[in-house]
Amino acid sequence: MAKEYKKSPLAPEFFPEMPVIEGVELGTASTELKYKGRDDLLLVRFPEGAAVAGVFTKSKTRSAPVDWCRTCLAAGKPARVLLVNAGNANAFTGRAGDDAMQKCIETAAGVTGADNDQIYVSSTGVIGEVLPADRMLTHIEAAAKSDVSWEQAANAIRTTDTFAKGATRHAVIDGRECVLNGIVKGSGMIAPDMATMLGYVFTDADITSPVLQQILSETVGPSFNSITVDSDTSTSDTLLAFASGKSGAGAEISDPADPRLADFRVAFQDLMTDLAHQVVRDGEGATKFIKITVEGAEDDRAAKVIALSIANSPLVKTAIAGEDANWGRIVMAVGKAGEAADRDRLIIEIGGQRLTEAGMASKNYDEDACTAHLKGRDIDIFVDAGVGGPGKATVWTCDLTHGYIDINADYRS
Amino acid sequence: MAKEYKKSPLAPEFFPEMPVIEGVELGTASTELKYKGRDDLLLVRFPEGAAVAGVFTKSKTRSAPVDWCRTCLAAGKPARVLLVNAGNANAFTGRAGDDAMQKCIETAAGVTGADNDQIYVSSTGVIGEVLPADRMLTHIEAAAKSDVSWEQAANAIRTTDTFAKGATRHAVIDGRECVLNGIVKGSGMIAPDMATMLGYVFTDADITSPVLQQILSETVGPSFNSITVDSDTSTSDTLLAFASGKSGAGAEISDPADPRLADFRVAFQDLMTDLAHQVVRDGEGATKFIKITVEGAEDDRAAKVIALSIANSPLVKTAIAGEDANWGRIVMAVGKAGEAADRDRLIIEIGGQRLTEAGMASKNYDEDACTAHLKGRDIDIFVDAGVGGPGKATVWTCDLTHGYIDINADYRS
Repeated sequence: MAKEYKKSPLAPEFFPEMPVIEGVELGTASTELKYKGRDDLLLVRFPEGAAVAGVFTKSKTRSAPVDWCRTCLAAGKPARVLLVNAGNANAFTGRAGDDAMQKCIETAAGVTGADNDQIYVSSTGVIGEVLPADRMLTHIEAAAKSDVSWEQAANAIRTTDTFAKGATRHAVIDGRECVLNGIVKGSGMIAPDMATMLGYVFTDADITSPVLQQILSETVGPSFNSITVDSDTSTSDTLLAFASGKSGAGAEISDPADPRLADFRVAFQDLMTDLAHQVVRDGEGATKFIKITVEGAEDDRAAKVIALSIANSPLVKTAIAGEDANWGRIVMAVGKAGEAADRDRLIIEIGGQRLTEAGMASKNYDEDACTAHLKGRDIDIFVDAGVGGPGKATVWTCDLTHGYIDINADYRS
Repeated sequence: MAKEYKKSPLAPEFFPEMPVIEGVELGTASTELKYKGRDDLLLVRFPEGAAVAGVFTKSKTRSAPVDWCRTCLAAGKPARVLLVNAGNANAFTGRAGDDAMQKCIETAAGVTGADNDQIYVSSTGVIGEVLPADRMLTHIEAAAKSDVSWEQAANAIRTTDTFAKGATRHAVIDGRECVLNGIVKGSGMIAPDMATMLGYVFTDADITSPVLQQILSETVGPSFNSITVDSDTSTSDTLLAFASGKSGAGAEISDPADPRLADFRVAFQDLMTDLAHQVVRDGEGATKFIKITVEGAEDDRAAKVIALSIANSPLVKTAIAGEDANWGRIVMAVGKAGEAADRDRLIIEIGGQRLTEAGMASKNYDEDACTAHLKGRDIDIFVDAGVGGPGKATVWTCDLTHGYIDINADYRS
């Protein structure tokens, strides 16, 4: 049934050692809905009073679980459960899909003694097939009683991912250490617009939901909203953060401007960026991890539009797959972005080698050094848009290879 | 040097029989700048008083020839010459590139007795290499003296095109017949924004430049601006129309609203659409010609945004390459377009088979019939956005295959 793909050549060497987060309990189960011989259901339990925050896909055809999470957030209660299943997105399944989701929520609420709107859910996988709720219920109960590691949790939410993705950081609040752990899944259909695929951040910091929401919203821009694999945006993109409040680090923080959050903010951003990069490193068919920095644009927004135009250009991505310093395609991508750029002052560098200046090919360009850089796994592209503005942005993507076609031209079976 | 690719499986069986257009003289030459053993320079001569109109790329990094054509149009003189070279785009070549272009223009003006700003030029091919003007001049003189067929002219402007592209129509104005001929080149970097790559329409109708401009501008929307191969927009896109006025059909028409233009308008639109389809049929690596129609959107603009979102989705294009009725990806593409769409009233049909209705998979869907349709070369996708609006649009694209990667991951050599 489900194909297994070879581990991405850009994968990290190993899954990180991730510490326990006080109050956060992980359980998994195997429903065998699509995947055989592996867990595909994750149930995370939170203690009383856990803070929660979220950002979601802006898709106009978003899935029922996304709508449900937004409803829960609006209700404003502490979170008690995160329930994720992989293999079936339960998206575009009409009322039958909604009913199936509600049954799962009620079961999770029942076994944990929570209200329905304290149960956050995500479903990922094939679109258009109704989740068979009756088959799920015993597995939800089993997951609620099991106790697994972070790596097992990260593995349970994978679909076409070729490796489990997790990251961990520490931060100091009021002189006491707290932990931040994150897991994420995503590989194709990656062009996040507020969030990407499924990502979850957990911490034992004692902060309120509004503070958590503020930090999540401000860190998503330079991380998940700065990556793209194929310019396609999922109907299920969900990014949730949970804070158990059990770190014992001082009193609860309820003001996003509280200076005691400084170190936590940095760690949170760093964790988010790490997770986002792992999604690009598992981009379908990827063989190169590409960083694109744009400066000298009118403003940061314009710089990001130009950077994403380069990152999403099939012609740029195939040139890099072919290890070809075809900078004319970068000029093209800058031009089609529609933002102000001065053709005659544009600067393009690959791997620190200046390829163009003053509107034409640079005379001092060392093609050998550039080609050596392109033969590596990590590719750096720098563009100065030439209009002298303060705008800058960095985005990350991967190359476009035969592997992407192989994976996506396959039959769904 | 330049690779030759196998003729597209979607190519028309033969180049059409295209009649002479009174007053329009075609000449070609072989500069051997990039291509050996074939013509790569086209020089078209027009009689005194020929009308001219044009639309161009909106790229912010557009090429010097595009800027020059815009200058000529603004000057408002009759056109005398169209000069096109293939293999070198002379784009992003700074002042040296401008100087080379000016030399070519002066030579063409000299041999035809025209002013410089009556010489329309296009260059297509590799970006970033200065056109070696001195090598061009004798070839421009030779082309001005030669006399070739429309098929030879269409062949001389090809780059990665796998077949020469031409179309012809007749129209009646004031009871007298006139001819419309068009030639076009384009295969990759196709997501026109006002025009695509290089396209030229010629007619012997006796109409003024403003009338020609009006008809060109109104027919480009449903033709060249409704096709996409890879979402990349060229720096050189140029579409020009010339009217020699030699058909002998009544007096010159100077009012775009003149009812005598009715038949001509229809023929002009039909010719433009034919030429645009040929570009898609030669899309790099294409094996399927895909028509996407969207109805039930808020307005025509919204319908086109949704249709292009589907047409540019790598996941939709690879699914069709794989002959897979993966309609979940069409739902995704509708959702990411950002225009109003009702998930629970969305309708998707492939090859006339209704796949979804009322927000879920259709119960009466005949998968065998749908698969049979997807195995063909011409694929029809229909979407009703479900918001009950009057908006509709049709766009055309091709599938995304290993052939596209092969062509574009190659070294420029």
